[in-house]
Amino acid sequence: TVSAPAIAQAQPTIKWRLTSSFPKSLDTLYGGAEVLANRLRAMTNGKFDIRVFAGGEIVPGLQALDAVQQGTVECCHTAPYYYVGKDKTFALGCSIPFGMNARQMNAWVYYGGGQKLLDEFYANYNIVSFMGGNSGTQMGGWFRKEIKNLGDIKGLKMRVAGLGGTVFERLGAVPQQIAGGDIYPALEKGTIDAAEWVGPYDDEKLGFFKVAKNYYYPGWWEPGPAFSFYVNKKEWDKLPKEYQEAFQAAAYEANVTMLAEYDHKNPPALSRLLSQGVKLQKYSDEIMNAAYKAAMEIYAEESAKNPAFKKIYTEYDKYRKTQNAWFSVADTTMDRFLQTHK
Amino acid sequence: TVSAPAIAQAQPTIKWRLTSSFPKSLDTLYGGAEVLANRLRAMTNGKFDIRVFAGGEIVPGLQALDAVQQGTVECCHTAPYYYVGKDKTFALGCSIPFGMNARQMNAWVYYGGGQKLLDEFYANYNIVSFMGGNSGTQMGGWFRKEIKNLGDIKGLKMRVAGLGGTVFERLGAVPQQIAGGDIYPALEKGTIDAAEWVGPYDDEKLGFFKVAKNYYYPGWWEPGPAFSFYVNKKEWDKLPKEYQEAFQAAAYEANVTMLAEYDHKNPPALSRLLSQGVKLQKYSDEIMNAAYKAAMEIYAEESAKNPAFKKIYTEYDKYRKTQNAWFSVADTTMDRFLQTHK
Repeated sequence: TVSAPAIAQAQPTIKWRLTSSFPKSLDTLYGGAEVLANRLRAMTNGKFDIRVFAGGEIVPGLQALDAVQQGTVECCHTAPYYYVGKDKTFALGCSIPFGMNARQMNAWVYYGGGQKLLDEFYANYNIVSFMGGNSGTQMGGWFRKEIKNLGDIKGLKMRVAGLGGTVFERLGAVPQQIAGGDIYPALEKGTIDAAEWVGPYDDEKLGFFKVAKNYYYPGWWEPGPAFSFYVNKKEWDKLPKEYQEAFQAAAYEANVTMLAEYDHKNPPALSRLLSQGVKLQKYSDEIMNAAYKAAMEIYAEESAKNPAFKKIYTEYDKYRKTQNAWFSVADTTMDRFLQTHK
Repeated sequence: TVSAPAIAQAQPTIKWRLTSSFPKSLDTLYGGAEVLANRLRAMTNGKFDIRVFAGGEIVPGLQALDAVQQGTVECCHTAPYYYVGKDKTFALGCSIPFGMNARQMNAWVYYGGGQKLLDEFYANYNIVSFMGGNSGTQMGGWFRKEIKNLGDIKGLKMRVAGLGGTVFERLGAVPQQIAGGDIYPALEKGTIDAAEWVGPYDDEKLGFFKVAKNYYYPGWWEPGPAFSFYVNKKEWDKLPKEYQEAFQAAAYEANVTMLAEYDHKNPPALSRLLSQGVKLQKYSDEIMNAAYKAAMEIYAEESAKNPAFKKIYTEYDKYRKTQNAWFSVADTTMDRFLQTHK
């Protein structure tokens, strides 16, 4: 039944700015913020209007958190692990080497107590957070030469960020921090031996396959990175209740659609790469096992000196183990069968 | 910036009824409709008010589609494969044996053209549809005796619904249609030899583990069933644009949160079942391979006589193969490694 429209006090017009950590060229990642903003405008007849700015337009991509914390902008869309330089705890809200996959992160954050733990930590930064996208398991990078064992890792100069870089360093590699646009020339000239980026769809655009033919999998340092919307706490508290609710629904949408969009775009991109002579290579057990061991050592060391990390990691790790025990039964058994029956 | 609230014409109050196909006891499934309704009320200050009724309260669970089609209620929350008796094409919007998993369904429906194909088909039933939940890969049922090979399937009386039942029939079993509440006594008395339901969390509540100790996996007839909201087309068209937008955002939320909730609840439920002496059993390759072959024959036969099925299945099958080729690389390799490193 539709009652006659009432004359009532309407919702206020609110204009926010969102700084994305991503360039427009990473269209699926950048698009997560557009999904949120477009839906919010459409739900409120344009009254809750969030304008999205690409990384660099207001502040550099890696300063998105600071901009929200300081109130330069009301919100951002970012990868929490960009801020491990401030505190490694940030990585637990995004992705850690050998951590949880996309579905497991959703289970943990939405239902397993993860949101509460993260919010306690984020309160130190004056922000509230909402998951807003996932790439699925990323790829393990482009290598000019094959790497078969740990010996091949020693001295390897690789563009790899965050905790993945810390693990590679323990294995004897020399991790490099290089911005997206500078990776290709460095790889072409041989200034670096290897570089990781995202997955087939994004990697293809940067053209790495032309200068490094060995494409390794899986990206064990990013089993399911969760991207987030951070909102300045004071601005959040000022929102009308209805707009807070609308923001949350739109963030759920951005979360599920980004992963679906990556899952849609990656398969044909991988096919195109393979048709260009790319060699798909699996990380050897020797390398995977050594990296796993190094990662667990890093988590133990960080837990010993960082109470915030320890508190969240302890719960995260317990949850991850329970999840993996279950996923190994129905889901992965099914997936493996289907992958071998074409 | 927050402008002063304007006095303007507010949105109308709209009251809808939603019939769920599920009983309240299946709280995670039933809860999908509550997630939608609660968020819509909260976003609209109670003005878009959808009241949720459990299966049987207005119409029986399996008549939800008819109730929406005929306008008895404005919308429903259901499992499309309940309607394979009308047309097997319905199963393609939900789950088919050896079909796509949850992430793949999202990719196909949201980005791979699936929504358009399904909407063309649903137009015959006067409905528009929105995905609204997924259980992940289900379990393969409870068996009083071990089944090791095809010989053990012959003559087996099993409670299994839909296309899964059709496949079991080709393998020589005698599928039974039994409503949820009647399964336990039938299994206890030995009137049936086996029964499938959902997964650990829902199965535990029905107590099957007390009378049939062999718990098989994976549920190859439900690799990732997608549940849907169906809305009567005329009622949908009458909604204000803002409410249509809010409905869509809330449906995305219901979709991602149901899967997360199942992923959260299933692992501890499986642990509890195992501590009760349940024997976890994997379907043998012989049975899986024969079931896969039978399923593919059924799809070919249906395609030969049903143009609607053929049109959608052809695209579905192509998409599924491309998806599986990609998932076998990064995601499943990562998942398997983690499942074997505790």
